[in-house]
Amino acid sequence: MTARRLHLNAFLMSNGHHEAAWRLPGADPFVNHDAAYFTRLARTAERGLLDSVFFADSPSIMGEVAQRPTSVLEPTVLLAAMATATTHVGLIATASTTYNDPYNLARRFASLDHISGGRAGWNIVTTATLDAARNFGLDELPAHRDRYERAAEFVDVARRLWDSWRDDAAIGDKSGGTWAVPERVRAIEHSGPYYRVHGPLNTARPPQGHPLLVQAGSSEHGRDFAARHAEAIFTAQQTLADAQAFYADVKRRGAAAGRDPEQIKVLPGIVPVIGSTEREARALDEELDRLILPEHARAQLAGTLRLDPERLPLDAPLPADLPAEDEIEGAKSRYTLIVKLARDENLTVRQLIGRLGGGRGHRTFAGTPEQIAATIEHWFTAGAADGFNVMPAVLPSGLEAFVDHVVPLLQARGLFRTEYTGTTLREHYGLPRPPDGRTPPLAGPVRPVTALTGGKAGR
Amino acid sequence: MTARRLHLNAFLMSNGHHEAAWRLPGADPFVNHDAAYFTRLARTAERGLLDSVFFADSPSIMGEVAQRPTSVLEPTVLLAAMATATTHVGLIATASTTYNDPYNLARRFASLDHISGGRAGWNIVTTATLDAARNFGLDELPAHRDRYERAAEFVDVARRLWDSWRDDAAIGDKSGGTWAVPERVRAIEHSGPYYRVHGPLNTARPPQGHPLLVQAGSSEHGRDFAARHAEAIFTAQQTLADAQAFYADVKRRGAAAGRDPEQIKVLPGIVPVIGSTEREARALDEELDRLILPEHARAQLAGTLRLDPERLPLDAPLPADLPAEDEIEGAKSRYTLIVKLARDENLTVRQLIGRLGGGRGHRTFAGTPEQIAATIEHWFTAGAADGFNVMPAVLPSGLEAFVDHVVPLLQARGLFRTEYTGTTLREHYGLPRPPDGRTPPLAGPVRPVTALTGGKAGR
Repeated sequence: MTARRLHLNAFLMSNGHHEAAWRLPGADPFVNHDAAYFTRLARTAERGLLDSVFFADSPSIMGEVAQRPTSVLEPTVLLAAMATATTHVGLIATASTTYNDPYNLARRFASLDHISGGRAGWNIVTTATLDAARNFGLDELPAHRDRYERAAEFVDVARRLWDSWRDDAAIGDKSGGTWAVPERVRAIEHSGPYYRVHGPLNTARPPQGHPLLVQAGSSEHGRDFAARHAEAIFTAQQTLADAQAFYADVKRRGAAAGRDPEQIKVLPGIVPVIGSTEREARALDEELDRLILPEHARAQLAGTLRLDPERLPLDAPLPADLPAEDEIEGAKSRYTLIVKLARDENLTVRQLIGRLGGGRGHRTFAGTPEQIAATIEHWFTAGAADGFNVMPAVLPSGLEAFVDHVVPLLQARGLFRTEYTGTTLREHYGLPRPPDGRTPPLAGPVRPVTALTGGKAGR
Repeated sequence: MTARRLHLNAFLMSNGHHEAAWRLPGADPFVNHDAAYFTRLARTAERGLLDSVFFADSPSIMGEVAQRPTSVLEPTVLLAAMATATTHVGLIATASTTYNDPYNLARRFASLDHISGGRAGWNIVTTATLDAARNFGLDELPAHRDRYERAAEFVDVARRLWDSWRDDAAIGDKSGGTWAVPERVRAIEHSGPYYRVHGPLNTARPPQGHPLLVQAGSSEHGRDFAARHAEAIFTAQQTLADAQAFYADVKRRGAAAGRDPEQIKVLPGIVPVIGSTEREARALDEELDRLILPEHARAQLAGTLRLDPERLPLDAPLPADLPAEDEIEGAKSRYTLIVKLARDENLTVRQLIGRLGGGRGHRTFAGTPEQIAATIEHWFTAGAADGFNVMPAVLPSGLEAFVDHVVPLLQARGLFRTEYTGTTLREHYGLPRPPDGRTPPLAGPVRPVTALTGGKAGR
């Protein structure tokens, strides 16, 4: 039996995940428009043998244009440009089920998978902002539950479209004059509450069968959705205990949905701030926090909490009368995480802003490569993670430091690959290629977790 | 005054535009999944200093899967992959206004324009097939007029989204901590019959301001739309007289819509079948026609004509009782062109299939490089064309032959550039960059052509 191995994803974002990274002396504030810059980052990730790189996305401006690089290229197009100059690293794009059509999106991901030789992944999001809704003819954000019901049907349709061509459909028989066997290309004739899609897709089944399906919602609906559909889960967890509880919960939900929990990879976010000494790392962390303009950050926090910024004096704790998660239609779990962090650690608004500046709720960890590798190993072996979503505070330097100084320590500990053993994203994550010619049976309705015998995940 | 120069676009399609090109001995029938293959074609076009390369597209399978390579990658994603290995050639993708959202599509084209350094073009289509409608929840093809009304609003919204960031919005002021000036990033608050879109776009104004707008519909609605919106027009014309009439008509309509007719470039399609002697060219043409399976081609022709294939005996002329163009909701002008070709030249179904196999209605021309260059010059100087949409019957050989043997003759005649003088697609076509910060005023409602004084275009 081979040892269990870590999975590492590099979450790429402009000059880095820290809000103020674009203001550092060496930073070019316009890298977001530069495919060559992101291609270099992907090549760095590939040099470090990482499983994948990843872009978040939303069809609206995220945050304040004054505050940070808010002009972002569409990820499937950007990753296609990055595909040609890389050979192994996976390419994961975020795309919304609420604001796309299944036919078009399934085809774009199939195209990216063909172009990259089987390296495409789709981070499935339902998009939690009113700004996005208003770009698509809506006056209100659709309800959380409705968005997830739509997402489930959308993913079902996408799978069936990818399967609408059997792997052996296109035969290219030149002498007989048959390019594809018509009986192996089938309409899907889908008719559901949200979509009617006849099919077949006009792009043959992609190299991976289906692109890797990734998900990042951590609310109740988000976890149920992940348990049924996700093969990798990105999640924000501040403490080991919280991460262990989340890990056990989604594996248990996956098992309840009839899936092999091993085939659901859980990757908490980590924001490594790396120095050659702990002191050097902390100095970088503090320099970054000093560059955050408090009025910008307060406006952003107020948006997340659905409050008037005036209700958040910088040197006072959060107001006591915040709404419960149930009343939030947006990014529910992120809301809860931020409020819990502030209350558990008794932070003022200013202190909370500093904590969120690096990772927006993900765990910021300033330290030496040894300290970071030790933390990764601890979480990995303590039932909190199958790997990590690495979110460098500063790019490209943070990714280079991780690849050059943390990855070798993880390899020395026997936790991480020393060469790529496959060429597809599914192979990197140790996930099977879905069989062709039929839709993999959907797990039935998810049984409520409370109906199961309690206790830890059964693995 | 500089001499008027030709514009040349290479229309890329699998193994070539001839239906049977994939069956030739040297052909790889699976090139449609290979971005590296298309990148080589784009580099060949660039070696020939062509203005652009182009992909047709529809969100449904076009034609019979048995007959030809019908699995096609989504063009914006494919062209992004081709952008990184090219530096000058324009990259034109077809996308449907009927089956996309303006926000998402405007953003994808802005992204492609950023990635390519200002080389993106959008061939605007309304998509004329029932198969496509059924992939998006519809039971019937929307009416021709409705599709064009929707397209006009879609393009208006897209232009305003591209203009929602002024060129000077993102300033990247690191010391002051202002990434973009909020007053220079404006919502569009569009509310129309088909779309409500708040904006702004989440991608800054692209290098070209707007990608080049291309159009290919030649029906009445198509010509009116082109006159108002298109900067380049691809068109199928079989004879010089037809091409001259079309050219004069769209320039006149453009002038009536308040536009400079010089800024509407008309590019008829030409399918060059090139041999070093005329005899060699005709032999290749005949070999290709022999490889068409008549039963496949008849089924395709029957689909275009909305007939049962049984009504098309191979060795008889077309039935006399075909419907008029008015009754056709699909590709109206192509329908008329095919029927006219068959009747004018008194062709049997088998002969008609041979004529359509190469260019599906575009002019197939088998000859030597000298003969092809002479024809191009004749059409260009006789008021029939501002350039050509070059549709090689066989790829890559047909494009290589055109670049290596026809382009030098056109250069020697002083008709074509001998170096790129700009880097953007708009510069290649001699078209201005739209000013920022405001939407270029829309030409008012197009006056009916009959209300104008008759005669030739006023240029």
